[in-house]
Amino acid sequence: MTRAAAAMTRDAAAELDARDPLSAFRERFAIDPAVVYLDGNSLGCMPHAALERLHEVAAVGWGQRGVRSWDEGWLELPLEVGDRLGAAVLGAAPGQVVVGDSTTVCFYKLVCAALDARPGRTQIITDRDNFPTDRYVLEGVAQARGLQLTWLDGDPETVGAMVSPDTALVTFSHVSYRSARIADMAQVNAVVGDAGALMLWDLSHSAGSVPLSLDGDHAQLAVGCTYKYLNGGPGAPAYMYVQHELQAELRQPIWGWLGRRDPFEMAPGYEAAAGMRGFLSGTPPVLALAAADEGVKIVAEAGIDAIRAKGIALTELAISVADESGIRVASPREPARRGAHVALAHPDARALCAGLIERGVIPDFRRPDVIRFGFSPLTTRFVDVWDGVDALRGLLARGGPPGSG
Amino acid sequence: MTRAAAAMTRDAAAELDARDPLSAFRERFAIDPAVVYLDGNSLGCMPHAALERLHEVAAVGWGQRGVRSWDEGWLELPLEVGDRLGAAVLGAAPGQVVVGDSTTVCFYKLVCAALDARPGRTQIITDRDNFPTDRYVLEGVAQARGLQLTWLDGDPETVGAMVSPDTALVTFSHVSYRSARIADMAQVNAVVGDAGALMLWDLSHSAGSVPLSLDGDHAQLAVGCTYKYLNGGPGAPAYMYVQHELQAELRQPIWGWLGRRDPFEMAPGYEAAAGMRGFLSGTPPVLALAAADEGVKIVAEAGIDAIRAKGIALTELAISVADESGIRVASPREPARRGAHVALAHPDARALCAGLIERGVIPDFRRPDVIRFGFSPLTTRFVDVWDGVDALRGLLARGGPPGSG
Repeated sequence: MTRAAAAMTRDAAAELDARDPLSAFRERFAIDPAVVYLDGNSLGCMPHAALERLHEVAAVGWGQRGVRSWDEGWLELPLEVGDRLGAAVLGAAPGQVVVGDSTTVCFYKLVCAALDARPGRTQIITDRDNFPTDRYVLEGVAQARGLQLTWLDGDPETVGAMVSPDTALVTFSHVSYRSARIADMAQVNAVVGDAGALMLWDLSHSAGSVPLSLDGDHAQLAVGCTYKYLNGGPGAPAYMYVQHELQAELRQPIWGWLGRRDPFEMAPGYEAAAGMRGFLSGTPPVLALAAADEGVKIVAEAGIDAIRAKGIALTELAISVADESGIRVASPREPARRGAHVALAHPDARALCAGLIERGVIPDFRRPDVIRFGFSPLTTRFVDVWDGVDALRGLLARGGPPGSG
Repeated sequence: MTRAAAAMTRDAAAELDARDPLSAFRERFAIDPAVVYLDGNSLGCMPHAALERLHEVAAVGWGQRGVRSWDEGWLELPLEVGDRLGAAVLGAAPGQVVVGDSTTVCFYKLVCAALDARPGRTQIITDRDNFPTDRYVLEGVAQARGLQLTWLDGDPETVGAMVSPDTALVTFSHVSYRSARIADMAQVNAVVGDAGALMLWDLSHSAGSVPLSLDGDHAQLAVGCTYKYLNGGPGAPAYMYVQHELQAELRQPIWGWLGRRDPFEMAPGYEAAAGMRGFLSGTPPVLALAAADEGVKIVAEAGIDAIRAKGIALTELAISVADESGIRVASPREPARRGAHVALAHPDARALCAGLIERGVIPDFRRPDVIRFGFSPLTTRFVDVWDGVDALRGLLARGGPPGSG
């Protein structure tokens, strides 16, 4: 990138926007003009199409057709949206992705399924910097089953030194929620697979921001949320990916009626439905699922490669302005190893985030010292990146945030 | 009821509608005028307020405020809607109900929590006629833990002959999804409690149709869905009730971040949040939760006693017309022991249901021989009941449904 050479001006950022092939997508979303929204990696913006779809599924599907809608498409929705997501975003052939339940519940289900498929093995491995809900779920499951939860302190790629014939399950986030570091999925899959353990990826900060090739990288299991870069809505349902070859072997623990063969027979005795339907449990959250579908469709339309190219350009811009301003960058400097957000480190990060929000810039604070700027390529402009980092620079120039020690 | 004496005419049913104190509520819902919708106990009708609320929470909460909305009310929504539901519908003092996850997942969480609280006890009891998802979840949990799942063949009140010091958990539906029979909650709670076991109720077919007094009846645990008589929407989030005294003792198995103390600290180590928040797992499904809230509000406004009175009158009418027509009634005849739906039994029930749907009447088939007419007192008119049973009578008079053997 050539921008780092000379001081970056706001005009130069505006010039990048003028040349941005994705710029028209921003109009497809609701965006508060009063703020610089740099938190699309926490809650992505609302596609106008989601609002329309919500209205349609409620007014027509629920309001007019009522219970008949289950047979008129609703029952297929978890698999249909899953396949769309698989093709456009995850690099997964059809029949391996299903959408439903929260990310936490999906993660729990696949953790239990994996552990049940590796009886006698006593160890679970994750990294200390993994997303909290993943860490907490693992603690709970490890305690309930009397397994050992081992914390990796280094990067996911170093897990080879830790796996053993005792390892049942390894799980990491593909893109770190704090640093945005991208793990080498193919390499980790190979190492974990060689040890006979199962590998479960959390794609929450990857899907919709960086290309994924779950099939190509020989991924076994994955989960992720749809409300970040997929713009699926607050608390939108999450997805599960289970590699074709594993689907018959794995059994998820929450045996609900919608995961049963012929659920409306309501027959005695649970028999898991074939394929990904067997990973469902309860009644699908139709309204939220329909809204999330629209987010997936827009990402599919824009194309993940174009999104990735802009994501790199946005983070490069943020890093170059941060560098000019003496702000410490806590994300990888190599674009290929960095997702679509940037972590800027400062001892007063918490107070600085509050100061930014007062000034109309919305980042995330991540303890202990990270100001996280999330750039969502379909909605974030280059001038937003510039404005965000510039606002931080301004706060620091004034001697730091109010009340900082 | 005096109506059974003389043959019931449609005009007489219309007269009941004219005197119905709840009749105005029907206008608050979207209702397809082309059909007689007798399936509100499968999917309740859409309140117009739910459509408006969905639009508001999406367009304003998500679209304009974005991630800021979490601190502007969303994080409280699971508990706020729970308390509203507890007060208006469940007979539960504040701080004992939380809304989130599917009914199946909520049920699983409380089953596991209960079993963990009764270590060493090896038996789970339910009845053979319980709702399928409950039966399947129990099978899965019993198998995973090596516990004995014992099937009661009789009514829930006979469980006293089955409980023992080995019993960890007993669980029944309060209103049977097939017959509409209401269990004696206080009596069962006492019997199970005396055995030192925990009692978990499924209120899916009760809440919003019959009065409940969970606190007064010394209930310990309950779950239920919001998309039947609470008109919460397709796949709407379910609720959990945990008696105050048990909340500190019970720990649910899916340790997600939203169930942790100070979730946004993202700190190491799970520590359950106090109270019902500790029973949450993942990110709350905000859109669906907001829609469901509107359903709860309408029930609260109408009042459960008025709803119950109309529910009895609707089912009495159905039974009297069925009796006149020689159709076998498979629901309790005593109104006090019957919920708001009526099971009519016929060997050709499956084909008869298909024939009814062709004629614009929407019931449910429940294997092996039940035609289930669900009456939702806020939306079902007396003429709808009459039309539904009359259509069935017409089919039978023609020698049964097409293709019946």
